[in-house]
Amino acid sequence: MHYAKVDAAIVRAIRTIVADPERVLTRQQDLASYSYDASFGAYFPEIVVQPLITSEVAGIVRLAYEASIPVYPRGKSTSLSGGPLPVEGGIVLDLSKMNQVLDIVPDDLIAIVSPGVVTGDIHRAAEKYGLMYPPDPSSLSICTIGGNLSENAGGPRGLKYGVTKDYVLGLEVVTPKGEVIRTGGRTVKNVTGYDLTKLIGGSEGTLGIITQAVLQLIPKPPACGTLLAVFDDVVTAGTAISQILVSGLLPAKLEIMDQACIQAVEAYEPCGLPADAAAVLLVEVDGHPLAVKEELKQAASVFRSMGAKQVVIAGSEAESAVLWKARKMVSPAITRIKPTKISEDATVPRSKIPEMFARLKEIGDKYKINLVVFGHAGDGNLHPNILADKRDRDEMQRVELAIAEIFETAVALGGTLSGEHGIGMMKAPFMEMELGKAGLDMMKAVKEAWDPKDIMNPGKIFPRPDQKLVLIER
Amino acid sequence: MHYAKVDAAIVRAIRTIVADPERVLTRQQDLASYSYDASFGAYFPEIVVQPLITSEVAGIVRLAYEASIPVYPRGKSTSLSGGPLPVEGGIVLDLSKMNQVLDIVPDDLIAIVSPGVVTGDIHRAAEKYGLMYPPDPSSLSICTIGGNLSENAGGPRGLKYGVTKDYVLGLEVVTPKGEVIRTGGRTVKNVTGYDLTKLIGGSEGTLGIITQAVLQLIPKPPACGTLLAVFDDVVTAGTAISQILVSGLLPAKLEIMDQACIQAVEAYEPCGLPADAAAVLLVEVDGHPLAVKEELKQAASVFRSMGAKQVVIAGSEAESAVLWKARKMVSPAITRIKPTKISEDATVPRSKIPEMFARLKEIGDKYKINLVVFGHAGDGNLHPNILADKRDRDEMQRVELAIAEIFETAVALGGTLSGEHGIGMMKAPFMEMELGKAGLDMMKAVKEAWDPKDIMNPGKIFPRPDQKLVLIER
Repeated sequence: MHYAKVDAAIVRAIRTIVADPERVLTRQQDLASYSYDASFGAYFPEIVVQPLITSEVAGIVRLAYEASIPVYPRGKSTSLSGGPLPVEGGIVLDLSKMNQVLDIVPDDLIAIVSPGVVTGDIHRAAEKYGLMYPPDPSSLSICTIGGNLSENAGGPRGLKYGVTKDYVLGLEVVTPKGEVIRTGGRTVKNVTGYDLTKLIGGSEGTLGIITQAVLQLIPKPPACGTLLAVFDDVVTAGTAISQILVSGLLPAKLEIMDQACIQAVEAYEPCGLPADAAAVLLVEVDGHPLAVKEELKQAASVFRSMGAKQVVIAGSEAESAVLWKARKMVSPAITRIKPTKISEDATVPRSKIPEMFARLKEIGDKYKINLVVFGHAGDGNLHPNILADKRDRDEMQRVELAIAEIFETAVALGGTLSGEHGIGMMKAPFMEMELGKAGLDMMKAVKEAWDPKDIMNPGKIFPRPDQKLVLIER
Repeated sequence: MHYAKVDAAIVRAIRTIVADPERVLTRQQDLASYSYDASFGAYFPEIVVQPLITSEVAGIVRLAYEASIPVYPRGKSTSLSGGPLPVEGGIVLDLSKMNQVLDIVPDDLIAIVSPGVVTGDIHRAAEKYGLMYPPDPSSLSICTIGGNLSENAGGPRGLKYGVTKDYVLGLEVVTPKGEVIRTGGRTVKNVTGYDLTKLIGGSEGTLGIITQAVLQLIPKPPACGTLLAVFDDVVTAGTAISQILVSGLLPAKLEIMDQACIQAVEAYEPCGLPADAAAVLLVEVDGHPLAVKEELKQAASVFRSMGAKQVVIAGSEAESAVLWKARKMVSPAITRIKPTKISEDATVPRSKIPEMFARLKEIGDKYKINLVVFGHAGDGNLHPNILADKRDRDEMQRVELAIAEIFETAVALGGTLSGEHGIGMMKAPFMEMELGKAGLDMMKAVKEAWDPKDIMNPGKIFPRPDQKLVLIER
């Protein structure tokens, strides 16, 4: 695909759509801030526009479509898969300033939000009404709902409550040709035509730009409680996970941390985790206070029968908070092991969790890399993280091979490349392995029908011919 | 679109794909059995094929695509919107015999099913393992999962648990060109590319034929309990509904029956419902036994404060069963009022339920028709049912006008044409009213990209030019 450049005429046209000079950025130092996300690589856009309203977004997209210039929607760029990177140059639309709408409608159990609203602010706004917005990606204090919607973000509560897409009832979307459409609505049940809401949600900005969303809320469970189970062996911990669910319990969260994560957290900020444990499971149960108490006891008994060497039920909210803080600290803590962190989210069916742990250990040993594991074990969504140093070319080549093998393993076990981070650029080369050519072609047919010029976030999801995973410049 | 006819050569070609003569039907009396569903109109197919395996489905579709012959997938044809009707002639694929696969994998909390499996059988199979498949369309004892998936069927438990699509993890699909693809997989979290699972689910057989599905199961709640609240006024009952949810309770079911429904049920088979009540609400709460007990008390107190004249908590499972049987009997009971029943499922935001009740009353009066209301009030998914006599042309014309006004009202209140029955033929004329031209065009673009010859269940969802709702032959 040959794209046009953002020339002086285009800049003038953009300025007629967004007149405020503060919201049209062309200086090199400004563009640099938009050249990266939380994944790899630096790609400079030619111009950055910060729209505030839907008509500005639509105007820019229409212009870009007519001129064949790529457009990349972007929130706070916490993407771990390269979702917002402007890999073909062109226009970055920074939607983080489009954060004016955050309306809770308690009678309808919905929230109406604009894309730049920070996810954590939705949590707090809903809670004021005794309601809950369940999706809780780890970055919720900084990430925006627009990014969550585009990538279908998950989080620990995914086990019981599902992911972002499960809470989207309707969208306002600017299509790749710059038209404004509304999908879905304000009702939980809606079968009027194709589900464009869930097609565009999770499409990583390749099928349109979300300019408003109607989110479903639920009554906030009145109580919750936390339990820590300590294991001498990772594979046993993995077996205990599916046993909990088969026993009839459905915890809100069921997380795992392996020994390397535990030790990294304790070195970073001691939380009282057992540094000699091979793995710990962290469980949150929520619901009616009486049920929470009973279910924690029941979970403790299941873990003991599955060989846990220690089970601790948090005695207070403060004790629970310390444990969950430890879990949140894993990501920052492990970057002390080595400076470059590659965070994966290959996901397997729950019954394959023990096998996945065993295979991850083999892969780490085979390629002589630092591979640690934590994540949302209850739903099979592990986060194998590789700690490396990107200046070490030899190590990075081994990392590339290890990542490819992690993906192959997940797919071979009946799992998927990505549970919640998205495909972006990094996983595009592996799409056909999971989907087959016919499956990928059906997705491409949708993309080509809607965006024949491929201007909407190009370079993501669909692999270029012969594209390979590249973490180092060659 | 001009389609080819099923001539002798096509019949011979079909017989090479499905050799068993018992499974290829061409006699007029057999075709007659496939000419209708639970909605309106009779349309004869030219041939009916009963495939048993995916390769037979794919073979027939490839043949149909090459020859430009329409294909209509069909289960047990409980559709209320004309979903499986062969409106352009051609080939009906009766998938009800493709019911060989019903595997529960308890460790993964999934069921793997072929499309002809009866939904109620999935319920029973899951319950053997202490698990639950939540979607519970009223027809579950006869309808097939293939139909549920294609129409995104709902049911009372939709309030707490969502609808069919919320429990589909993966599909095997025969595309309109006869290729076999797999979408999604066996994991709850999966963001690998576009969500074709949820695009094809609910697409009413217009984007492909589902030949296998992976369904998500959940631990079966250990207890449930039922409550009946009696109201003197329908609008007050409507207000009580959203108050329950705002109070922090999330019942599994929250159903309404108006006076006409109550009286019809009591005349049909007395269940002890108060025949003088303007409306009753029927609530089921599920979860931990201690929580269920407390929450029933809490719900009773909310209903009393909202002006219920009587609240009864069922004292036993047998008492609960009688109440839910009464709810199930509404559909058969009201057909005694008049022989022709037109069942709608216009859905509004919960806060608009009282207003929708008031508007439905006005519409019934204005057009002098028998309009009764029951349904899944907790999620705004009402079932206004019109009882008429299709031999009475004058009455049926008034019914047509009333239905159009019901749809207009639902959309004007921020709702949708269909909560769970699908668009089919009956609601196609109203699509642009809800979606706008641009929104409908985006759906059409997907259809045209995947099925350029429009052979896959033509005549559904998308209106023909100037198509109008027609319930009588003119």
